[in-house]
Amino acid sequence: MKKLTDIIVDSDRIITKDHIPQSHLTDGLKSHYGQAEILVYPKTTDEVAQLVKYANQNNLKITTRGAGTNLVGSTIPNGGMIIDLSLMNTIIELDKSTFTVTVQSGILLQDLQQFVEKQNLFYPPDPGAKNATVGGNISTNAGGMRAVKYGVTRDYVQALEVVMADGTVLNIGSKNIKDNTGLSLKHLFIGSEGTLGIITQCTLKLIAKPSVFETLIIGFNTIEQAVANITTILQTLTPTALEFVERQVAQWGERYSGFQFPLPDSKAYLIIMLDGANKQHIVQQRQQLLANLGDCNYFIAETIEQANQIWTVRGSLVRAVEAVTEQDPIDIVVPINRIADFIHYTKQLQSQSGVRMLAFGHAGDGNIHLCILRDGRDDKQWSEALEQIHNALYQKCHELGGLPSAEHGIGTAKVKYFNNAIAQENRQLMQQIKQQFDPNNILNNQVYITQL
Amino acid sequence: MKKLTDIIVDSDRIITKDHIPQSHLTDGLKSHYGQAEILVYPKTTDEVAQLVKYANQNNLKITTRGAGTNLVGSTIPNGGMIIDLSLMNTIIELDKSTFTVTVQSGILLQDLQQFVEKQNLFYPPDPGAKNATVGGNISTNAGGMRAVKYGVTRDYVQALEVVMADGTVLNIGSKNIKDNTGLSLKHLFIGSEGTLGIITQCTLKLIAKPSVFETLIIGFNTIEQAVANITTILQTLTPTALEFVERQVAQWGERYSGFQFPLPDSKAYLIIMLDGANKQHIVQQRQQLLANLGDCNYFIAETIEQANQIWTVRGSLVRAVEAVTEQDPIDIVVPINRIADFIHYTKQLQSQSGVRMLAFGHAGDGNIHLCILRDGRDDKQWSEALEQIHNALYQKCHELGGLPSAEHGIGTAKVKYFNNAIAQENRQLMQQIKQQFDPNNILNNQVYITQL
Repeated sequence: MKKLTDIIVDSDRIITKDHIPQSHLTDGLKSHYGQAEILVYPKTTDEVAQLVKYANQNNLKITTRGAGTNLVGSTIPNGGMIIDLSLMNTIIELDKSTFTVTVQSGILLQDLQQFVEKQNLFYPPDPGAKNATVGGNISTNAGGMRAVKYGVTRDYVQALEVVMADGTVLNIGSKNIKDNTGLSLKHLFIGSEGTLGIITQCTLKLIAKPSVFETLIIGFNTIEQAVANITTILQTLTPTALEFVERQVAQWGERYSGFQFPLPDSKAYLIIMLDGANKQHIVQQRQQLLANLGDCNYFIAETIEQANQIWTVRGSLVRAVEAVTEQDPIDIVVPINRIADFIHYTKQLQSQSGVRMLAFGHAGDGNIHLCILRDGRDDKQWSEALEQIHNALYQKCHELGGLPSAEHGIGTAKVKYFNNAIAQENRQLMQQIKQQFDPNNILNNQVYITQL
Repeated sequence: MKKLTDIIVDSDRIITKDHIPQSHLTDGLKSHYGQAEILVYPKTTDEVAQLVKYANQNNLKITTRGAGTNLVGSTIPNGGMIIDLSLMNTIIELDKSTFTVTVQSGILLQDLQQFVEKQNLFYPPDPGAKNATVGGNISTNAGGMRAVKYGVTRDYVQALEVVMADGTVLNIGSKNIKDNTGLSLKHLFIGSEGTLGIITQCTLKLIAKPSVFETLIIGFNTIEQAVANITTILQTLTPTALEFVERQVAQWGERYSGFQFPLPDSKAYLIIMLDGANKQHIVQQRQQLLANLGDCNYFIAETIEQANQIWTVRGSLVRAVEAVTEQDPIDIVVPINRIADFIHYTKQLQSQSGVRMLAFGHAGDGNIHLCILRDGRDDKQWSEALEQIHNALYQKCHELGGLPSAEHGIGTAKVKYFNNAIAQENRQLMQQIKQQFDPNNILNNQVYITQL
């Protein structure tokens, strides 16, 4: 039997039990911690394959992690081996002639984005955590703000290299754009939260980089007006991003970032990003948009600095909250015509429960993020409050035809709401698939799929 | 045990062995025929579920068909029961507020397109056979010409209702745009060629109908020039359609349709469709396109009639061939930078073999369609010629990193090439999934997945 030091020869890439840093025993929230026997940092697919075989032989469960930005407990290990893919961050090939880039899965999203944009190409998925790995993005089918125009991570994965639970290396997909050659294993791995295999490499689709972007803010006197105009906008054109923020939520971001939103007398905002091949195309889209919106207050960012300030305020909302109090982040999605209903419900729930919550989100695709604020609550009060608020929110989301995860995944945190949202026969099929792909249940066995 | 007449009460919706029309024992090519015990025309999901239970009890295999336009043998029954879904063609709901339409799966693509376009909405997938059913489109993940801008059928399926092999009715997906709630069963059913379940209903994503379309043709002096400019175009903008046709292939369409292509002195054409919110946006795209192409001959269709004539010539190529001789249609895909290599190879193969073949296709996504012409060959000569040509073409396609099916599926016709293209471990996983979904192997058991 191979020793671990035969597989990973650099001793600094093997860390044993007591020396594993706390950061590797938790997720992005750092509110729960697990434990593990060993932490390893492979650099190659072959090392990952050998590690998986080693884990099988030594009866070790495996928790795979990228940058550890997960928000639903998926990177909290339940014993066994942690495989950290952060050293597998090589750009293997940029193929301009097929508009693809092939990378190891541990590359950070921000590094990938910067690299391709320097080549005048564009990787559209843009989830909030730019310091997440691309492999992590694939495992949760991450979305982000530009999804309204460009779709989610799923839409940009052309090919995957995956180490299976027995150490077999699978190659799935290709550089071909169309593909109806057999069952789509690729789409099964995307969003599977590390439960079916370890994604070690991927080929991603790129597009030509839009030349010009423009940001504008529309201010409304009521939340209803703001939300009602989401559909109007989507019927007119497809913006790059379409974000909803209430005035009182924006103020958190303003205080934290030091920048001010324009139109401070508004009750609610839609922040819109447009992109195009040139300024003329942008102006044309904007004119059309404003014509269809009718009478409204708007502000057009005239400079990149103005645009950046607006997105900085929007982007700092979570950190603004976290600077004041611990928060619990919610990621739900409702059909776009139910956004107003859901936002209203959060206000009602806030009044009833006394628990503060800030709602904002990707209005263009019904993906609402909430921060639930801990404020002064002690551990018991906080866990009781969360239990109550979660139950109410996910129930409402379910009633509105929504789902408990748009882009964060189910992990360990949402098992109950997942079971409530997804029919038993569907869950049964998911389990059967998991069973076929990972018969000994060694891959991310802490997450939902083994607990259905 | 229920009798068939208890499930389907209208006697004209049950047709027994000797009365089954020949049309239902074949596929769109009508070159091979199977046999079946019974043909049924359900109208509801409940009837389908009961039929499946009946088939299980009576040891009948099931072949599901829509309009029978399949080109790879999938609708050629191998005994048992044929379930024809063509009467399940109801539009259940148009939900403008979520940009979705819910239909029974037997609705024809052309009926769906017309219906939504009257509402100023747009269903982008546009495979050649407008008389195919939407369920059939989903089962082969059909693409078509507009895929270069708008993607394929997969990208527009929001939800599915599926009758499983044991008669259970599964509901998958929702009207939510983002979804990372468990393994994506939806994507597994899309493109599964009827092997995992019977799709009875679907919710499809719509977009706002583009207001203006423009067609232009670019003429080139060599095939190389035409193909080299595909990448240039895609780097400049995303056209609605980008089709490649050689002059000598276009002539077949001209003779058949009676319309003439412009720029008759060219050797090869790229036909481009642009769409936009208004004329200005179109003009802008066109100017940009022509600026980047440099010196070339082009023709802009000034009227809808002119545009229609161009698309009629392009759309009539297959029928033009079929009016002269029997043909075998090929659907392969290569990475977009290998299109020229593949086209050249077909010419070389034509010279070597003496078998005429016409290549044309969806240049924007590397999807090349070929007609192999039977000409005067007798059955034996034809089958030998096809065997030889197929082996050579699919081998070349494989060498170029291509795949044996872009949008027609594998069916029974491409099993050999599928097995060559897809690694054994991937096929093994597909079979394991099939086994879990349909343990008695009663659904479309004639197609590839049971023959791996």
